[in-house]
Amino acid sequence: MLKPLGDRIVIELVEAEEKTASGIVLPDTAKEKPQEGRVIAVGSGRVLDSGERVAPEVKEGDRIIFSKYAGTEVKYDGKEYLIIRESDVLAVIG
Amino acid sequence: MLKPLGDRIVIELVEAEEKTASGIVLPDTAKEKPQEGRVIAVGSGRVLDSGERVAPEVKEGDRIIFSKYAGTEVKYDGKEYLIIRESDVLAVIG
Amino acid sequence: MLKPLGDRIVIELVEAEEKTASGIVLPDTAKEKPQEGRVIAVGSGRVLDSGERVAPEVKEGDRIIFSKYAGTEVKYDGKEYLIIRESDVLAVIG
Amino acid sequence: MLKPLGDRIVIELVEAEEKTASGIVLPDTAKEKPQEGRVIAVGSGRVLDSGERVAPEVKEGDRIIFSKYAGTEVKYDGKEYLIIRESDVLAVIG
Amino acid sequence: MLKPLGDRIVIELVEAEEKTASGIVLPDTAKEKPQEGRVIAVGSGRVLDSGERVAPEVKEGDRIIFSKYAGTEVKYDGKEYLIIRESDVLAVIG
Amino acid sequence: MLKPLGDRIVIELVEAEEKTASGIVLPDTAKEKPQEGRVIAVGSGRVLDSGERVAPEVKEGDRIIFSKYAGTEVKYDGKEYLIIRESDVLAVIG
Amino acid sequence: MLKPLGDRIVIELVEAEEKTASGIVLPDTAKEKPQEGRVIAVGSGRVLDSGERVAPEVKEGDRIIFSKYAGTEVKYDGKEYLIIRESDVLAVIG
Repeated sequence: MLKPLGDRIVIELVEAEEKTASGIVLPDTAKEKPQEGRVIAVGSGRVLDSGERVAPEVKEGDRIIFSKYAGTEVKYDGKEYLIIRESDVLAVIG
Repeated sequence: MLKPLGDRIVIELVEAEEKTASGIVLPDTAKEKPQEGRVIAVGSGRVLDSGERVAPEVKEGDRIIFSKYAGTEVKYDGKEYLIIRESDVLAVIG
Repeated sequence: MLKPLGDRIVIELVEAEEKTASGIVLPDTAKEKPQEGRVIAVGSGRVLDSGERVAPEVKEGDRIIFSKYAGTEVKYDGKEYLIIRESDVLAVIG
Repeated sequence: MLKPLGDRIVIELVEAEEKTASGIVLPDTAKEKPQEGRVIAVGSGRVLDSGERVAPEVKEGDRIIFSKYAGTEVKYDGKEYLIIRESDVLAVIG
Repeated sequence: MLKPLGDRIVIELVEAEEKTASGIVLPDTAKEKPQEGRVIAVGSGRVLDSGERVAPEVKEGDRIIFSKYAGTEVKYDGKEYLIIRESDVLAVIG
Repeated sequence: MLKPLGDRIVIELVEAEEKTASGIVLPDTAKEKPQEGRVIAVGSGRVLDSGERVAPEVKEGDRIIFSKYAGTEVKYDGKEYLIIRESDVLAVIG
Repeated sequence: MLKPLGDRIVIELVEAEEKTASGIVLPDTAKEKPQEGRVIAVGSGRVLDSGERVAPEVKEGDRIIFSKYAGTEVKYDGKEYLIIRESDVLAVIG
């Protein structure tokens, strides 16, 4: 098991289809495109200057949208994961 | 549903007309031009170093003006949204 | 109505004459030149790390001097405004 | 009257002679040269993260030495002033 | 013995195999690759602005994944170690 | 008299000999070389975010070693001084 | 005597041998190499935003490993010292 530290979370990628129904690849815009993932493990949260630890807003199993260039690839037990910071999570799909 | 995290909000774009009444495109000035949007979902707010969470000033349904280059495009359920930080919101149109 | 967020304020420009009495344009110096404006609307103020909100020092109707390159141009109801941060205000003319 | 905001102060320049008694211009060294001024108006002081406002150390009428490249030139009522931050003041001449 | 200071930890490297079962070197992707290590010694933790010291989340003997380019190589008693900050630890393998 | 503000101090330079006893100029190393000075006046100290003012560790008359490229040259009453921040003082020679 | 200020410490270098037993110079790796020193004097510690002063973790006489490019060379009483910040100390050899 991978136990992320502080405000980090372990996710696995969920590949989103990049084509339209008719199979045409859409042209990229200048805007940054996010990626989809599923939360596998959540750290204990970041520590504030006051000494308080902020409980993460995401939890195991959440489907999330996160910043595309965030994180570090990790291979563990033959599977690929990504370790990102919770601040790279844009939204939970609920 | 998209639930934005922390001080993020989900908005949909409101296209503002860029022509004058007579249809003439106005020349750009050096100043940054903002964009208009409608708030779809609001995060729980950012956490201060004191541990306090700041309640967002915008709410669902608000029409807002925001910084043009802010945010990340998200496609969800066939519709396009933008996820921005509340600090990128310049003003609420009320 | 435009309701600025946080430490932002909405102003309208007051054009200052850039000529001397005799109509001669003064040569620019290397120093940054400020601009004059009138405050139209004031945000709720910025939030400190302590959770406290700092009441803005300017109020509606104030004539102010502000940093020339600050802010974002906004067109609303056919009129042009500028949204700047209170920290870009140098002085109130009183 | 110009009422500076926050930790800003309004000063008027006091030209220091840059020549020796015999009228010879001294060669510049690599070190930054400061400038002299007289304090015309003082802001309410900067606000700390604790919410406390720090009372300025300078007061109206003080002769000060300040960082040469600091501030913004302002013309008001036909006179030229400079608006600088109190942190650009190096010392009071007393 | 090496006693790391503050939020630093002393680790020894655990070489991860970079080949597949069949011995083929996998092509690198653009993503940063982390490294594996074992914790040898842990500092007293970093001090917050509140004066509180944050107890490290890792302990002696932990197998960890850390950022590849982090830390400083140290040779001590004929063995090689790496001194990194706890914030460079991505996850504990447990 | 020059009264420095905040965490600033006024010093006069103490020229250290840069030659060996036999008069040979030593070759410079890559390391930054500090300079020696004598403290002439001390500011009231810097203000922390908590509102507390930190009493300076140096006092009038102290001989100090400070960072060579720090500070601003000031000529006052025909003498040359340097105004530096207390944080540029490396050590007191006592 | 040299009394370092704040979070600074005075150290003297301890030259570590850079050859193997058989006298072969080891090839450098890309990693930064640290250096060894002995603590001669310790400052009063850095002041936190809360006003609290953090007692240094090192003490006079400690043998330390520190970041190679840190600090300022000081010659005092014919001997060479280095003044570094405590944060440049990686570990105490104990």
